[in-house]
Formats: sequence, structure tokens, C-alpha cells
Amino acid sequence: MLTILLVKEQFFYPDKMKISLNKKLENMARAAQAASRPLGVLATDEKNKILINMASALLAEKDKIISANKKDIVNCQSRNKAFIDRLTLTESRIKQMADSLIEVSKLKDPVLNVISSRDVPSGLKINKVRTPIGVIAIIYESRPNVTSDCIGLCFKAGNCVILRGGSESLNSNRAIFNILNKVALEAGLSRGTINLIDTADHKAVDYLLKLNNYIDLVIPRGGEELINKVVRSSLIPVIKHYKGVCHVYVDEEADLNMAHKICLNAKIQRPGVCNAMESMLVHQGAAVRFLPGMLKDFKDAQVQIRGCALTKKIAKWVKLATQKDYRTEYLDLILSVKVVDSLDSAISHINEYGSHHSDSIVTENAQAAEKFLKEVDSACVYVNASTRFTDGHQFGMGAEIGISTDKLHARGPMALEELTTYKYMVYGSGQVRE
Amino acid sequence: MLTILLVKEQFFYPDKMKISLNKKLENMARAAQAASRPLGVLATDEKNKILINMASALLAEKDKIISANKKDIVNCQSRNKAFIDRLTLTESRIKQMADSLIEVSKLKDPVLNVISSRDVPSGLKINKVRTPIGVIAIIYESRPNVTSDCIGLCFKAGNCVILRGGSESLNSNRAIFNILNKVALEAGLSRGTINLIDTADHKAVDYLLKLNNYIDLVIPRGGEELINKVVRSSLIPVIKHYKGVCHVYVDEEADLNMAHKICLNAKIQRPGVCNAMESMLVHQGAAVRFLPGMLKDFKDAQVQIRGCALTKKIAKWVKLATQKDYRTEYLDLILSVKVVDSLDSAISHINEYGSHHSDSIVTENAQAAEKFLKEVDSACVYVNASTRFTDGHQFGMGAEIGISTDKLHARGPMALEELTTYKYMVYGSGQVRE
Repeated sequence: MLTILLVKEQFFYPDKMKISLNKKLENMARAAQAASRPLGVLATDEKNKILINMASALLAEKDKIISANKKDIVNCQSRNKAFIDRLTLTESRIKQMADSLIEVSKLKDPVLNVISSRDVPSGLKINKVRTPIGVIAIIYESRPNVTSDCIGLCFKAGNCVILRGGSESLNSNRAIFNILNKVALEAGLSRGTINLIDTADHKAVDYLLKLNNYIDLVIPRGGEELINKVVRSSLIPVIKHYKGVCHVYVDEEADLNMAHKICLNAKIQRPGVCNAMESMLVHQGAAVRFLPGMLKDFKDAQVQIRGCALTKKIAKWVKLATQKDYRTEYLDLILSVKVVDSLDSAISHINEYGSHHSDSIVTENAQAAEKFLKEVDSACVYVNASTRFTDGHQFGMGAEIGISTDKLHARGPMALEELTTYKYMVYGSGQVRE
Repeated sequence: MLTILLVKEQFFYPDKMKISLNKKLENMARAAQAASRPLGVLATDEKNKILINMASALLAEKDKIISANKKDIVNCQSRNKAFIDRLTLTESRIKQMADSLIEVSKLKDPVLNVISSRDVPSGLKINKVRTPIGVIAIIYESRPNVTSDCIGLCFKAGNCVILRGGSESLNSNRAIFNILNKVALEAGLSRGTINLIDTADHKAVDYLLKLNNYIDLVIPRGGEELINKVVRSSLIPVIKHYKGVCHVYVDEEADLNMAHKICLNAKIQRPGVCNAMESMLVHQGAAVRFLPGMLKDFKDAQVQIRGCALTKKIAKWVKLATQKDYRTEYLDLILSVKVVDSLDSAISHINEYGSHHSDSIVTENAQAAEKFLKEVDSACVYVNASTRFTDGHQFGMGAEIGISTDKLHARGPMALEELTTYKYMVYGSGQVRE
């Protein structure tokens, strides 16, 4: 009787049966919140087994992924080569995605880890215990491997995830998601444990960001436009994975050979990533000794230089930098250069123009190094090393979901621990407050 | 020449010289950010000396504070007794404010504390080190002692603070701020180290919340209206100190004498605070044994009961609870009561109706206790103790700036450590990435 009625309704009032995108997203987020309760207490072994099955499924169904990816590539023919390269999934890249899931299965489960324990005078035992955050939304651009990386890490830390990838990689993301979600459902996990927003409609992000009753955290990974949009619209707490305007500062007392090696590495080893150097600062007392050879080597490596007037004095071929240059993440073989009159000026410049990501000093002077480490307000501050080390694997975390450029909750590489929160579990024996 | 020109301008174009509230706040926030750099590296001894001088100054100038407070009280004659009580500053309350500053001076300085240290295969030494957050804005209501408490805690953790108190206590807040700021300036701290928004103009909060280029964190302490307003307007990360809809759940296997004592304490020992019990859940297997005596004692203690149908069956005089009752923070001698059919129902109810603050189970069954501790999604979860213990002092933190009901960065009582962030200080010897 009820069935007939429903069918009739559907037949006569088709518009009423259409669920708006807004409502759809709310349903998705509500289901994710509900699924986060059982997932939050799922045993580590169970989670690991599912991760390993997910890895196998990716390999078994790699043809589906590659053929979906080809559709995305065809749709993006007009984009540049670097873009197409980031978008493309090969057999070996799918193997890497599967390997990452296996690696995550081997990492220590942070959930229910006791961070600290305290016996207080009232007789209570107070344990500070890691717990999942709950529901995490991740908004990202282009690279489709992010889809499985995020699913793996969030899942291991006991969080339900809602993914919103770039529209350019929607076919690839959908294929990857469907394969992983099938494994999750077959393992008996609730629908809503992992979620993909399967539409290119740009309004989806606006709607999503208002669902603070269901979603605990949103992580935008991308450029200025995306980050600003999310910060302006979101009612949900945000941890930004923003650009890296990273500096190397060559001090007056630097070992100039070491500085040369570090600067070259930080700029050219992989210029398209967020921990590459975008701006090089040189103490005026080292400039004449350091810059000629350094700039020549950059030139030989096809690096365009945008320098201050003093830099240009040393190498006439250098283009003059604008104020904007010093704030720019080139992600390319371009470098801004500035000669500064002191360590203090270098620190002020970095705090003012940088993006609080990764910055390094090269110096043999321990006092200068300590001052730089303390006063530069960035997630990762280095002495005598390349900024390129800012990375979850290099930091010994085993993986990363990205690099937080924010100060709250998580700063720098975010891995499993950073995808958890904590609660206080308090054990009493009848205590009341006097 | 320049001076004459400026005086002339001021004389002829007075309107041009008026700075808008918006611009004023931006200047304040910019100055705070600049002041946060030297404060962030100020030696612990220096900070402690200044805190002790602040305490002395409060005591020396107590008459100024009391006379300013009297103005606020006169302006609030129409408000209820509890409100006036919270607003009123007596000599002994000023003494308490001074004592708190001295206590904070004795707490361990969290800044530059090494949280963890790691030697990684590349040869880098990676230290995770506590650092100040930077600039913190705190928006709060009525109680003027919060002004000096927040200044003391933020200062000790190396943060500049921008305070926005309730308009009802503006005279009191201004008096306290002026005394403490004078000490700060006399000690040579930058103007901008501590700040008070000295206007009752409601637009100030809207403007403030857009200054995310200068302010790192905003903490709203207050009721639903304030919290929602801040979440909706803020471009700055927010840690909410929201209401406490706290539960005690009396399990089927509870020691009912203990449960009786805990519930009475959690409700009546101090009903006006956020960690008091607002809702009592009772397993159906314990209800007939437990409720008659418990409800009688609540009645004798003048506590109004709003119960479910089953509660009303046991005590006819009970008022029937609405759905809204179960979400209400009464802060008064009122209690909602519900009989539930299982531990699972109790947990679901708390996760759905509570405010993720503090919740307790009374039980002799260790398995039930562990399930409750794991599955209730609140900052502080108790077994066999009153919820009234959620407090920085009771938790052994030495102080608190409030209770976070959020999950990110800080959860539960927030003290000095929770007012810091961290950075990675990485020590190399010329490392570059392969």
C-alpha cells in the first residue's frame, strides 16, 4: 500500500522526489557522523585488514581507474603539460597508491593512545587519551592519488571522510572511490564511512561548509583562491594547507660551500612542490663572496632570478624584483633574491613576506641559528639544511595528509596523530566536589 | 614645518582626523602582532616579575577598581540578583584576582619546552618545540575578573591579548586594564602587548573578527547567541567555550548510594556553573530502586524536576520534560530526568542532546564504564565521579582560561599549554634532499 503510494507520488510529482544538492550533502554528512561512532571504536586489526584489502582492490581494478583517468585527460587537453602530468595515473602510480595504503596499515594506530596520566589530590585518575576527530572534509585539487591517500589516513585514525576533489579529476576520483568504498561496505562498515562528493557543481563546496553540525574539520589543500573561499564561507573549523613561500637565509657567518649546495637543492631538486625555496636572502657581508658563483649556477640550471638592486649590482642580467615577487610561490624555476643588512632584517622579511611554512638559515654561528629558530614564525625552521625536508616521511611520521600552514591544532606535516583529538577519561570512586 | 601643517589640518579638517572604529581596531591588532614578536622570546623571569608587579598594582589601586565597578552596578540596577552578583567586585575578589596572577607566575613556562625530539635517517635532529600562538582575542561576558585572569594566562604563555568584555562591565574592565597595562608599559613592554577594546559599540566584534591577518585565535566565552555570532562572522580560527549540558548516567549496576551522592553534588553544589549536571539519565533496571529517594532529596533541595513519562510515573509531582528541556543548560536548580532502556540509549542520548562538555557514568561494571568512556563524545568523561571536577585547578593544570567544547587544538580545560602552539626546529649539518 505504502509502496504504491510512493510510486504514484514519484510518477505524478517527479519534482517533489528530486533531492536538492543541499539536502543530499546534508544527508551525506549526517550519515558520516553516524558512521563515525562505530568507526571510532573499530579495532586496529580490523582497520588494517580493510586497508590491505583496499590496496589489493586498487591493483585488481587498475584498468577501471586508468580508463576513467583517460576521460579526465581528454577533458583537459587544453591545460599545460605540468597539469596533465599531475592528473595522469599510470600503472606505477596506482601501485604507489596501493603501497601507501599498505604502509598506513603498518603505522601505529593513534586511537586510545594515552598521551598523559595524572593522579590528582581528589583521588581521581585523569587520563588524556587520543580519539578520532569525527568527520573530516578535505577539499583538494587535481592529483587523484590524494583520493586514496586521504581515505587511508583518515580511516586509520578512525575518522569518516568527505572528499571533494577538483572537477578535472572527477572521473578518476569516482573510480578510485567506488573501488575503495566497495571494500569498506563488504567489510560491514556503515555507508557514510567514506564519501565522495560526486558532482562538479561549484555550489557543493558552499553547502558543505555550512554543515558544522555534522562535520568537525575541513582541510582545504590548494591555492590562494580556494583557501580564501573556504575561510570566508566555512562555519566548520579549518586547517589550511596553503602555499609555501620558503626562504633560505645565507648568514654572514655561513659556510658558503654548504650554503651553495643547500640553496641549489632547495630550489631545483623539485621546484613544483610547496617546500621548495622561493626566495633567497643573503647577508650583505656575504653577498659579494657568495652571490656571483651562486647566481651563475642558478643561471646554468635555467633558474630565472628576480633580485633586489644590490643583487642586480652583482649580476646585471638579473631582473629587478617587485614587492609581489617576494610574496610569490612560483612552483617553478624562478627565484627571488634579496640582500639584507642583518639577521634581524632577514627574520622580519620572512615573517612579513613568507607563508609560515619552511625557512632555513645557513650559518656557523650557533647564536644566530638559535635566534633564527626562535624568531621565525614558521611551521618548520631549519639550520644548515634544505627546506625540502618538510615532509611527513622525512620527519619520521610514516605518511602525511599535507602540510598545515596554520598554527592551531596541527602545524607542519600532518599525519595520523594530527588527525586525532583527545578527551579526558577520568576514573573515580565516588568523588564529589566539596 | 611638518608640525604646523599637521596642526593646521587638524584644525581645518577635524573630520579627516577622526579614525574610524574599524581602522582603530586594525591598528590595535597590528600593534599586537608586532608586540607578539618580542613577547614571544621574553625570558620567563621577566614575565614572572611583571605578573607579580601586576598583582601588587591591583591591590594598591583597588579603590579605583571598586569605584569603577560601582558605576557598572548602578547602570545594571534592572538586572537580576545573580547577574549583579557576578558583576560585583569586592576587596576580597580583587585579592583573588591578584592571587591568581601570582599563581600564574609560579606555573611552569610552556614556551620553548621540547615536546618531542627525533633523529631521522637523513641525519637531521627534529625537535618539536612549544611556542606562543601569537595574538589571541577573547570575547567574554559580565564577570570582570576574567579581564585580569586572561591577561595573566595569555601573557605567561607569550601571547598578546585583545580583550572584549561585556558592555555591562566596561568601567570595571577599563580600570583593571589600565592598572595592568601601566605595569606592562613601565616594564618596557611594547604598547600592544595587552589590549582592551574600550567601547560598547557592538560593531567592534564584527570588525575584530575580520582581522585574520593579525589575530591568530579568537576565544568566545558565553551563551549561544554570542557563540553563533562569532562562528558566523569570524575569519579567525575559533575555539568555543560553549555551554555545558552535562549528564550523569546511573547504570543498572550502579552503587546507588554512590550515584545518589554524585547526582546531588553534580546538581546542587554550584548550579550556576558550566560543569553542573543539567540532565540525569537512569537505566530502567535501576529506576524504581533509585528514583523515589533521589527525586525526594532533589525536591527537598528545591530542585525542579522535568522528567520523562516513566519518571512521572514514579513521582507524580514531576513536570513532563519537552525535547527542548534535554538540550537546555539551566544554570539553575532545575534538572531534566530520563529513564533509558540501555547503556547504548544513554550514550546515544548524550551524544545527541549534550554539548560535548562533561558526562559521567555511575556503575560497578568495568565493561560498561569503558564503553561509556570510549563512546561518549565529550571533552571530559567520568566514571563514578561528579561532573563538577571539570576545571583547570582540579585537573592539576594550576589555572584555566575556560573550558573548550571544541575538538580541535584544545578540548576541556584550557590552561597555559593549550595557549601555545608548536614549531619544528630542525638541526642539520648541510643536508640536502636526494
